[in-house]
Amino acid sequence: MLKTAVLGGSGYTGCELLRLLNDHPEVEVTAVTSERLAGTPVSSNFLNFRNTSLKFEPLILEKLVKKADLFFLCLPHKTSQETVAFLNNAGKKVIDLSADFRLKSAKVYEEWYQTPHLFSPLLNKAVYGLPEIHRELIKDASIIANPGCYPTSAILGLAPVIGTDFVNTDSVIIDSKSGTSGAGRTPAQPFMFCEVNESVKAYGIAVHRHTPEIEQELTGIAQKDIGIIFTPHLIPMDRGILSTMYVRLKNKISLSDIQKLYNEFYHDEPFVRVLNDGVYPATKAVKGSNFCDISVFMDKRSSDEATLIIVSAIDNLIKGASGASVQNMNLMYGFEETAGLLSSPHSP
Amino acid sequence: MLKTAVLGGSGYTGCELLRLLNDHPEVEVTAVTSERLAGTPVSSNFLNFRNTSLKFEPLILEKLVKKADLFFLCLPHKTSQETVAFLNNAGKKVIDLSADFRLKSAKVYEEWYQTPHLFSPLLNKAVYGLPEIHRELIKDASIIANPGCYPTSAILGLAPVIGTDFVNTDSVIIDSKSGTSGAGRTPAQPFMFCEVNESVKAYGIAVHRHTPEIEQELTGIAQKDIGIIFTPHLIPMDRGILSTMYVRLKNKISLSDIQKLYNEFYHDEPFVRVLNDGVYPATKAVKGSNFCDISVFMDKRSSDEATLIIVSAIDNLIKGASGASVQNMNLMYGFEETAGLLSSPHSP
Amino acid sequence: MLKTAVLGGSGYTGCELLRLLNDHPEVEVTAVTSERLAGTPVSSNFLNFRNTSLKFEPLILEKLVKKADLFFLCLPHKTSQETVAFLNNAGKKVIDLSADFRLKSAKVYEEWYQTPHLFSPLLNKAVYGLPEIHRELIKDASIIANPGCYPTSAILGLAPVIGTDFVNTDSVIIDSKSGTSGAGRTPAQPFMFCEVNESVKAYGIAVHRHTPEIEQELTGIAQKDIGIIFTPHLIPMDRGILSTMYVRLKNKISLSDIQKLYNEFYHDEPFVRVLNDGVYPATKAVKGSNFCDISVFMDKRSSDEATLIIVSAIDNLIKGASGASVQNMNLMYGFEETAGLLSSPHSP
Amino acid sequence: MLKTAVLGGSGYTGCELLRLLNDHPEVEVTAVTSERLAGTPVSSNFLNFRNTSLKFEPLILEKLVKKADLFFLCLPHKTSQETVAFLNNAGKKVIDLSADFRLKSAKVYEEWYQTPHLFSPLLNKAVYGLPEIHRELIKDASIIANPGCYPTSAILGLAPVIGTDFVNTDSVIIDSKSGTSGAGRTPAQPFMFCEVNESVKAYGIAVHRHTPEIEQELTGIAQKDIGIIFTPHLIPMDRGILSTMYVRLKNKISLSDIQKLYNEFYHDEPFVRVLNDGVYPATKAVKGSNFCDISVFMDKRSSDEATLIIVSAIDNLIKGASGASVQNMNLMYGFEETAGLLSSPHSP
Repeated sequence: MLKTAVLGGSGYTGCELLRLLNDHPEVEVTAVTSERLAGTPVSSNFLNFRNTSLKFEPLILEKLVKKADLFFLCLPHKTSQETVAFLNNAGKKVIDLSADFRLKSAKVYEEWYQTPHLFSPLLNKAVYGLPEIHRELIKDASIIANPGCYPTSAILGLAPVIGTDFVNTDSVIIDSKSGTSGAGRTPAQPFMFCEVNESVKAYGIAVHRHTPEIEQELTGIAQKDIGIIFTPHLIPMDRGILSTMYVRLKNKISLSDIQKLYNEFYHDEPFVRVLNDGVYPATKAVKGSNFCDISVFMDKRSSDEATLIIVSAIDNLIKGASGASVQNMNLMYGFEETAGLLSSPHSP
Repeated sequence: MLKTAVLGGSGYTGCELLRLLNDHPEVEVTAVTSERLAGTPVSSNFLNFRNTSLKFEPLILEKLVKKADLFFLCLPHKTSQETVAFLNNAGKKVIDLSADFRLKSAKVYEEWYQTPHLFSPLLNKAVYGLPEIHRELIKDASIIANPGCYPTSAILGLAPVIGTDFVNTDSVIIDSKSGTSGAGRTPAQPFMFCEVNESVKAYGIAVHRHTPEIEQELTGIAQKDIGIIFTPHLIPMDRGILSTMYVRLKNKISLSDIQKLYNEFYHDEPFVRVLNDGVYPATKAVKGSNFCDISVFMDKRSSDEATLIIVSAIDNLIKGASGASVQNMNLMYGFEETAGLLSSPHSP
Repeated sequence: MLKTAVLGGSGYTGCELLRLLNDHPEVEVTAVTSERLAGTPVSSNFLNFRNTSLKFEPLILEKLVKKADLFFLCLPHKTSQETVAFLNNAGKKVIDLSADFRLKSAKVYEEWYQTPHLFSPLLNKAVYGLPEIHRELIKDASIIANPGCYPTSAILGLAPVIGTDFVNTDSVIIDSKSGTSGAGRTPAQPFMFCEVNESVKAYGIAVHRHTPEIEQELTGIAQKDIGIIFTPHLIPMDRGILSTMYVRLKNKISLSDIQKLYNEFYHDEPFVRVLNDGVYPATKAVKGSNFCDISVFMDKRSSDEATLIIVSAIDNLIKGASGASVQNMNLMYGFEETAGLLSSPHSP
Repeated sequence: MLKTAVLGGSGYTGCELLRLLNDHPEVEVTAVTSERLAGTPVSSNFLNFRNTSLKFEPLILEKLVKKADLFFLCLPHKTSQETVAFLNNAGKKVIDLSADFRLKSAKVYEEWYQTPHLFSPLLNKAVYGLPEIHRELIKDASIIANPGCYPTSAILGLAPVIGTDFVNTDSVIIDSKSGTSGAGRTPAQPFMFCEVNESVKAYGIAVHRHTPEIEQELTGIAQKDIGIIFTPHLIPMDRGILSTMYVRLKNKISLSDIQKLYNEFYHDEPFVRVLNDGVYPATKAVKGSNFCDISVFMDKRSSDEATLIIVSAIDNLIKGASGASVQNMNLMYGFEETAGLLSSPHSP
């Protein structure tokens, strides 16, 4: 059994990760940390975990380092930097769920996160952990930068076409709708029940920190600079991200040819489901699972250029965070890629 | 007191209209129809209306015509056609909340609604009832085609800029998110609680019937052909539409200049609130009111051309349907435009 | 125009009160306080109040006292005590929405609220502001202790029978279900969206502070000691309280006789609606209104004694708090009792 | 691999059962029926099942009987009667999720379900499938009457005390709150999103069909006639039942003694979790799992007799229906009792 530890396990991502690791056939969790809850049982923080005997402990790396071989970091960005560096230095493998090692350029990181990157030499060692794009690199990685939730839904939706010569990459628009668990578990008025319920709003227009991450990966796939317009929205539900993407088409190409492209691109992927023509993704259809559902539509009437409309749906806590980190672990350790991740979506 | 009748009053739009008319100082409701519920008290259909003595009656126009001077039609499209014609012929005024008289071209109507228009000569007599655009025509109208909910949110959001020379009208994108009351009250599996709750999905991509209505009005404002891409989404809440609109900019213009344009355009409007720079509209902030909140953002980083991102929020049952019809009535009869419509939004 | 001030206006109760006062024909609001938000516009705290020019000010009584004749206090309990005393001393009328003057016995107050009552001589001067029970006293009162939300739903449900000789008052059970706005607007993890949504739980069993308040009023009505069992529950919605009450019957009496009793008891009440036999109250049917809906059922099969099951529904922020305070004001100042409170419930 | 078939698989219970069987290590599903959807893929009915190749087929027993050894029946009551009889006659094992074989008395069945029982001799052969009460009988059963959702939550909550001599069994009250999936998937206005959302209501007071089922089992456990008062409520969430139960105590007994009793009663149960003193069950803490959480409270202040307040929480689709049927299958076939049922609750 692989020994794993979860650093920063008191939030929703940590909780979901513990749930998945708990049900995983090949691993055991030997430590969970939380500064705030140190000393208390994990089961009293998460009502759903009443049948575990784990206790939260403080983040004392010198002590923790001996307890596990693989460390999952659900720490805030910035705190993650030095923790990754310490563990890497100690020869441990790390899957970092924060944003600290996602951007290859320290300069871009510093610009968007307004904090220096103190361990920039490690940025090249870190692999962006989206298996559908970087599977081979992940297998050999010792530091995984686990993707953000919005980026996962956007990159998977755009990857099959962004590098083709029939799309106009000038004005790619990503309009995303997210459930509230993505905002985390720290009490704040905007995420109180009565503020979120029965309302929808946009936020972070033109300034959301997931923007450069999406651009970096799309640029890598397309092999040319890709800029995007990204608008996240908060909607009244626990889980799920639906991204609606708009890409203008330069040349004549049929919808069925594009659908074929998607089907081929994701043919062997265990967790990406390209839906049949005309079927709409819904976040409920992926809730509780590691699936990403994608469907492609075309609007040919509005202008000379047709516009491709791609819709993707994920569970933000699973494929958008903790499930993806387990998938990365499976690749790193040679487990079945789907191990611990096969549970079907729940409905309703 | 103006005598009014509501034809087709058993759905959500009819219910909301009855509530507003009930609280209106200048009118009385003398008849409400419903084929299905004829003979039963209105109060037993809508739990919230227990203190009214009105009963539903069948739609017998010969009988109803004598009961009122102004008729609100909340009937399905197609049924509305002949009802409007009959009442117009009898010299009565009509506010039609269906789609039957919104499109000026019978051909476009027939194409999108797949049914013949049997009273096309009346199309020119009908006025598209969006006061912010057609106030003067509404005052003298005898047939009002009350706007659709999505079109109201989209047209109000785009009207100040769509006719300017600094916008590129080639690829206007409208990404709308709607609460479920817009789908009506007739039982159907996709709108059952457990299907809608905890999920978000797109629908009607490139085929939604509100598309030509938005295009017609934007074309009228811009004085040139405007084609749009419109993607509606269903989200788990009762009321509210948030539309996020993307328009590319051809020339250099500052965000503050555009905000000024919006403030001037809506300066005297009682129900349109242009929010301060950086404040995001939320449907909860307009819930229960006739307000439309609008905010304008700009993304300058993604390409050579900056993109304007406009967000608008309305209560789909009020400003998007019944409230708008009351506002139209106020204009037609010389009442205060805001009569019966001043109640503040509810929060939470 | 009556000059009123709202002290502690940044929470949900304050917000709802401001909305109601704003729409009231006889009053104006001259001051609103909030320590935390002093200096900021009311409209930036509550998105729905964008069209007011009021600003929050700090709670400086010496300054505020001159600004109004009637003061609404939405302050936390304990803070309210001295504020009521100060204003009363200055000859002002006060409607206190906190719990500080609801309990006639300082001893009981101190036991349940774990804090001394420093102004106990005023307890007798204060009138418990439930108009259906204390209307005449309210008219002449200068201090109103505005009832708690749960007590309003429970007392109105039980008042018609609790003093009759056919009920067994030994084990009155009140099982209440409340929306989340009752928990207030201060950020706290248990009321975050993802904690409340998709869940129901009981809380405060046998220790909830509304218990002695219900007992005091039922004791007053019945003219004998009434003890109750009260179990509140938190459910995933914004507004509304449904209370299901169980009372055993000692003597044979028919359901229709009891329903007659309820109808007579509430015959002239503008805001209590006794529903027809077999019709179930629903919180949605009173949402946005000052109504209390009540329905009475009987279970004759389970034991020798039949059990009466009474269900009541209110909007906790209106009839359960701010609406009730406006109703009290109307009585105190000789306005129409229903002034500013006639808006119909919203549906959906 | 055990061959199983699901008859009536197009509703929520059938869907959840298919999900559980799909993830079960010891079984395969060889047939799923639906009259309405016969011929269509299971994956197009349930969005979450896109990766199954099963197709719905019509309910032709002669054909189906050869396809499996164990049949799960998610058919409406009445239809189930003859299907159970046919399969039993053919020597097959049956787990019937309808109400048809739960009541031992055909007379009581006919009274509450208003339809004759045509196969009453089989009633004695059928075992009420609540493992915590009838585990040994279940192991040898060929017909399992799978318990109703409300009864499961109520019986498990009351079983440890209902037969003791310190409780007064005269007026046991069960006040239950259920999510909406319990109402099934057939379109009906009362269960439309906008009717259920933001509302809570009681229904079926004194007439709900789960009443005799609860009474039969409690009577069996207590070895004396038990009558109950049962009030179900509908609340705005997908899944979960919380039952709050009130039992008067005749003799002095401490809460800790009763808690000890509960802990002992459920000591070896894999799916019943007795919570620590003062911890409240919440449906979210069992969502997606086969757990039943129970907590016990006491109110000593309201009368001479103390009252025991027991709160239980289950996921109505799992422990309240499909999960229970899998647990029963595990017992019948000698699999691990927890096989396929160990997934942790989801949070949020």
